[in-house]
Amino acid sequence: MPGENDKKDCVIGVDFGGTKILAGVFDAKFECIGRARVSTKADRGTEEVIGRIARCVREAVEECDLDLKQIKTIGIGAPGAVDSESGKVIFAPNLGWNDVPLKKELEKLLERPVFLENDCNVCTLGVYEVELKAKPREVVGIFLGTGIGGGLILEGKLYSGFNRTAGEIGHMVLEVSGPKCGCGNKGCFEALASRTAIFRKIKEAVKEGQKTLLTEMLGPELEDLRSGDLRKAIKRGDKFVEHIVEEAAEYTGIAVSNLINILNPEVVVIGGGLMEQLEDEMLAIIVETAMDYAMPGTTKGIEIIATRLGDDAGITGGAVLARKHTE
Amino acid sequence: MPGENDKKDCVIGVDFGGTKILAGVFDAKFECIGRARVSTKADRGTEEVIGRIARCVREAVEECDLDLKQIKTIGIGAPGAVDSESGKVIFAPNLGWNDVPLKKELEKLLERPVFLENDCNVCTLGVYEVELKAKPREVVGIFLGTGIGGGLILEGKLYSGFNRTAGEIGHMVLEVSGPKCGCGNKGCFEALASRTAIFRKIKEAVKEGQKTLLTEMLGPELEDLRSGDLRKAIKRGDKFVEHIVEEAAEYTGIAVSNLINILNPEVVVIGGGLMEQLEDEMLAIIVETAMDYAMPGTTKGIEIIATRLGDDAGITGGAVLARKHTE
Repeated sequence: MPGENDKKDCVIGVDFGGTKILAGVFDAKFECIGRARVSTKADRGTEEVIGRIARCVREAVEECDLDLKQIKTIGIGAPGAVDSESGKVIFAPNLGWNDVPLKKELEKLLERPVFLENDCNVCTLGVYEVELKAKPREVVGIFLGTGIGGGLILEGKLYSGFNRTAGEIGHMVLEVSGPKCGCGNKGCFEALASRTAIFRKIKEAVKEGQKTLLTEMLGPELEDLRSGDLRKAIKRGDKFVEHIVEEAAEYTGIAVSNLINILNPEVVVIGGGLMEQLEDEMLAIIVETAMDYAMPGTTKGIEIIATRLGDDAGITGGAVLARKHTE
Repeated sequence: MPGENDKKDCVIGVDFGGTKILAGVFDAKFECIGRARVSTKADRGTEEVIGRIARCVREAVEECDLDLKQIKTIGIGAPGAVDSESGKVIFAPNLGWNDVPLKKELEKLLERPVFLENDCNVCTLGVYEVELKAKPREVVGIFLGTGIGGGLILEGKLYSGFNRTAGEIGHMVLEVSGPKCGCGNKGCFEALASRTAIFRKIKEAVKEGQKTLLTEMLGPELEDLRSGDLRKAIKRGDKFVEHIVEEAAEYTGIAVSNLINILNPEVVVIGGGLMEQLEDEMLAIIVETAMDYAMPGTTKGIEIIATRLGDDAGITGGAVLARKHTE
């Protein structure tokens, strides 16, 4: 049980995604002392969604017997292009949002200062501040999930570039003649190694008669297929699923080698739902491929690791963002 | 004619390449007041090459009626992996060099302080300090020649990363299943868009019976083929050469879009011998492809330009490096 002392100086981190919203109350040591989760319901429109974020924050506060007034600041990671200075979500295709003043609206509802960043930047910030105790100067964060995003820590600080959109590593082209991506190009990293890409490949092969344990587990249409199902099928000896996941891991390794060649970070940290479920199946292949592809002399001492924060990277990073604004 | 006043406070920049060495004496306004050029003769061994660099420096100094003692510092860009702190060339495959203490040896021969950096970093530094008057905070330099290299200016400073090897953009994989690269991988940017890649494609096609004006100009073996010959053939209506150069420009555009997605620089500046000869044929395609491939919202206000420094980027950057060490 946290003592009363830990309840001073609390901040809230929010992970605002296309399907779910997580909120966590964090004490001064970045321990999570209260949390809540609600679904996003993006189809109900902007106002409803913003209301649900506020509700999620209130529930997390209530869970640890605090009052919202005791919270210093709130940090939010939002999916898409974010202008952190104006506090607007510029463009979030998964939500159907354009130019939404999220900071202002939430501050109206919650009466606390709110700070906004891109979700993958926030996750990278969380991993950097809370997990990487040695404080490497350059870190690349890669998050494998429905899509693929990234965040860059350069010279010890979150790097966002001229239009504040840096870190869009999911749309790095790895295979010009590769499969079509949601962005309209072909062969983006995201079109080759995201959960969406893996599921698409599996479903296409099944349609063409490929046998897999997944159809035994979930039926011929593979309804409600999830990353965890892939892990289960591989553990039960499904060589087809194993091969598809290995391919995604190889593409991820090539993406990592590109980032090492370009940015030469000290640490590459990989997270996201896909990685959380399939670390045992993917990480070793990612590391081996990246080390094989990167230029000689570039990889000495560089670490490629999986984050231990798992699904908490977003709320932790939100709390780090919030904390930065109390200093 | 430079007045005596301009001759105070001079530095020297050296562009040390696999085939030629250029040296330039620069005054306080970064005007080149004396220059020299010698061939590298890498096959004659390390000691001979270092002697030739020293000779080139002395010739440039003599050309502007100065004495070496009047030179404050010397800055050199060397091809390959460079440890700028120890002043060693760690690994330069084009020279066959490993772990050569170039700074120390040159300081012995020239009795002036010498500073060393990777050649593409030096070129980027030169373009940044002398050409980009608006001093954008983030710049990516791309140099297309025999190989492809790059340099990064982030937050207004040369960025080199953990092992000081950042900017190896030539070995960014763009086409996993593409042609083999000198580095051992397949489908690197360099294997798709360097002069070497273009020449290889042309020679392969000619062997298979492709007609081109180049064989009329240079004979069936295309001996002594140079970038300028491509320009001449295109100007005379050679659609085959035009197509090969367009393909290289498209790959370059995709590489630029990857770098915009990852780093979101304000300016991307393209140089190198290939670009100098084929700017009219390549730049518009590079810009169009990059803008088409980059994520929506990432390219607003971003400039993609060709450097005006041409072959002088290296000596100018060397002088900038030298000048930084007089301050």
